[in-house]
Amino acid sequence: MVVVCLDGSADEYLDAALARGRMPNLHRLSVEGYRGMARGAMPSFTNVNNSSIITGAPPSVHGIGGNFFYDRTSSQEVMMNSSRFLRCETLLAAASRAGRRIGVVTAKEKLRDILSAGLDFVGESGPISFSSEKAREAKLATHGWDNAETLVGAVTPAIYSGEASLYVLRAGVAMLRQGRADLLYLSTTDFIQHKYAPDTSGALDFYEGIDQELGHLLALGAVLGITADHGMNAKQNSDGTPKVVYVESQLTEHFGSGFRVILPITDPYVVHHGALGSFAVVHLPESFSDPSRVAAFLTDLPGVTEVHAQAHAARLFELPVDRLGDFVVLSNRDTVLGRTPQHHDLTAIEGGLRSHGGRYEEMVPFLRSERLNPVYAQRATGDVRNFDIFEFTMNGGLESVLK
Amino acid sequence: MVVVCLDGSADEYLDAALARGRMPNLHRLSVEGYRGMARGAMPSFTNVNNSSIITGAPPSVHGIGGNFFYDRTSSQEVMMNSSRFLRCETLLAAASRAGRRIGVVTAKEKLRDILSAGLDFVGESGPISFSSEKAREAKLATHGWDNAETLVGAVTPAIYSGEASLYVLRAGVAMLRQGRADLLYLSTTDFIQHKYAPDTSGALDFYEGIDQELGHLLALGAVLGITADHGMNAKQNSDGTPKVVYVESQLTEHFGSGFRVILPITDPYVVHHGALGSFAVVHLPESFSDPSRVAAFLTDLPGVTEVHAQAHAARLFELPVDRLGDFVVLSNRDTVLGRTPQHHDLTAIEGGLRSHGGRYEEMVPFLRSERLNPVYAQRATGDVRNFDIFEFTMNGGLESVLK
Repeated sequence: MVVVCLDGSADEYLDAALARGRMPNLHRLSVEGYRGMARGAMPSFTNVNNSSIITGAPPSVHGIGGNFFYDRTSSQEVMMNSSRFLRCETLLAAASRAGRRIGVVTAKEKLRDILSAGLDFVGESGPISFSSEKAREAKLATHGWDNAETLVGAVTPAIYSGEASLYVLRAGVAMLRQGRADLLYLSTTDFIQHKYAPDTSGALDFYEGIDQELGHLLALGAVLGITADHGMNAKQNSDGTPKVVYVESQLTEHFGSGFRVILPITDPYVVHHGALGSFAVVHLPESFSDPSRVAAFLTDLPGVTEVHAQAHAARLFELPVDRLGDFVVLSNRDTVLGRTPQHHDLTAIEGGLRSHGGRYEEMVPFLRSERLNPVYAQRATGDVRNFDIFEFTMNGGLESVLK
Repeated sequence: MVVVCLDGSADEYLDAALARGRMPNLHRLSVEGYRGMARGAMPSFTNVNNSSIITGAPPSVHGIGGNFFYDRTSSQEVMMNSSRFLRCETLLAAASRAGRRIGVVTAKEKLRDILSAGLDFVGESGPISFSSEKAREAKLATHGWDNAETLVGAVTPAIYSGEASLYVLRAGVAMLRQGRADLLYLSTTDFIQHKYAPDTSGALDFYEGIDQELGHLLALGAVLGITADHGMNAKQNSDGTPKVVYVESQLTEHFGSGFRVILPITDPYVVHHGALGSFAVVHLPESFSDPSRVAAFLTDLPGVTEVHAQAHAARLFELPVDRLGDFVVLSNRDTVLGRTPQHHDLTAIEGGLRSHGGRYEEMVPFLRSERLNPVYAQRATGDVRNFDIFEFTMNGGLESVLK
């Protein structure tokens, strides 16, 4: 049983590769099994959606509403790369406790700690969890394996590469082949999708590589569930420069200082997106007199599509209200939100900006390698979420594969 | 030069048919030409988007913001099925005047008048425009042809059928084959998509039929541009009943009488959707004291995703402000908006409700049968709109096909 999260895989990537015969395994899988679309968790970011996928729950339950939040108690901007921010158990930890042999591989080290939450690394018979970024540094006591290069049979890849993702799937293949795990979660990274549009050779070559590994997993008898954390869109002006609304600059100019804009896409991997996405959180200055004026101002900024006050944003997007600011702001298909021009290093994204975070990256592919039973086929006609993928994969078959 | 609008064609319909080898012509076309996604006009309804496609402009320019609006001057609910509501010339009329030989075929008669706006039916050498619904009743003086059955070589199909759409394309094939037109707009109807999910035989058979006609058009040397007016989603509870928020009932219950909710999806073809879509317009009672309370109430209704006041809705969705009410309300992927339970005949949609109108039906396929030149290939990486399809089809080629 293998669940794969293909980071940043807007459905167009699959379409382009399938049409050109570059994904024969996915092609067969989509006809013999199920292929549809699912709605992701908002904001359409990696940590948020990976946390949802491994818990089967929205951020309001698991607590991870972005890579970053502003902690009003400590007055600090806090990175949520740690499992200590998780507010519920993961499916993986529960399945491990119930006797399933868990294998978790992710591309970016930033995710590994969250994905490993609650796993008890008891040694060679226990769960395995590592990142391709730090495969070499895996330890038996903390990752379930000493130096994962010896498991995969390949050296640790560079994080800014398609290889970082292919390595994730190869590790899964190795674990299945060696009988080291029977319930796997494999989560890639979106370096390729940030860099390449769907019909370019950079993307097509990558998805061909992905497909080969999917083929290996299928050949080993895996039941596959495949989804994505978010989609991807070009966020540019017609001249190729990034199309950015600098929210903090705009607020400061119109209302004075003291505003804090949190961009929850922010992470240590700026080459991907320069910390620019289509979702921002605004904290008002202390004892600001008239929040509704700010809301009206934000609403009228060109490129902004939605502005929601804290409580409503928490309900609408199923977000943890205590990790949210006063307003949530979303931007258009081609527009990202920034703090100030000084805050962002645009040289990091000179090749063009492709990013995510908003509504236009919310819908993602959702596939199962074997046919859905009538109960799940009926559910698939409704508002399926990407974080239903474990449930669909494990329980959605014609006979329960858990028996 | 043929532009095709495949009514209600969410991209999943193409994916499902392509994966099963049911659309070989579209498959070839998408590899040799271009296939991507475009953003439609809001609300994601048929008349709105057809009007945008034939004018190359958003509703704020062409004036058609729905099938229905409430005219505050006359205090009447007015159907916008007539070209007299159009506020700009169409590309078709301009091209006709410039010497192009225009052929227009639509499935539903309701659209024909708008699509024919400004066309001068001068007789046998002039433009042709008719609907498959009323093919038999076409007249030379008003449609450019006496009895279109003699043109197509087939009898007028039933409007509630896939045939109604296939007839549209067959008419286009006949016009090309007989040399009667060189710039065509062919616009189908979404009976099949309202009724069938993408991976059902009802949908797959339909798209196979569509593909055969696309193949005939290509074989006759046509450059094809293909898009859709809107997508389609199931709008149901898990038990298969329609998931409806009755907005007028809710408002009356909480604030008293006098509210008027306009559902701009309303048209004479209720079997499709029971007048239930994911977009509604709210008119407040005269001299209502506190509109912001209504906005807050609407915003908190479960299933509602966005509420925008008139001026902002007009700007955000590029809608004609004078044909809009006080608030615009949008609902979720699986939820539709109604007036009151009494207002809707749910027996019309006993097979299950699939509908559109909101954000989740805004993104649509966008294809061109021949490769894009560098200028349009660059534009295709940005926020392409479905109403750019004539421009992309006519000017997007490696050499200008207009010369």
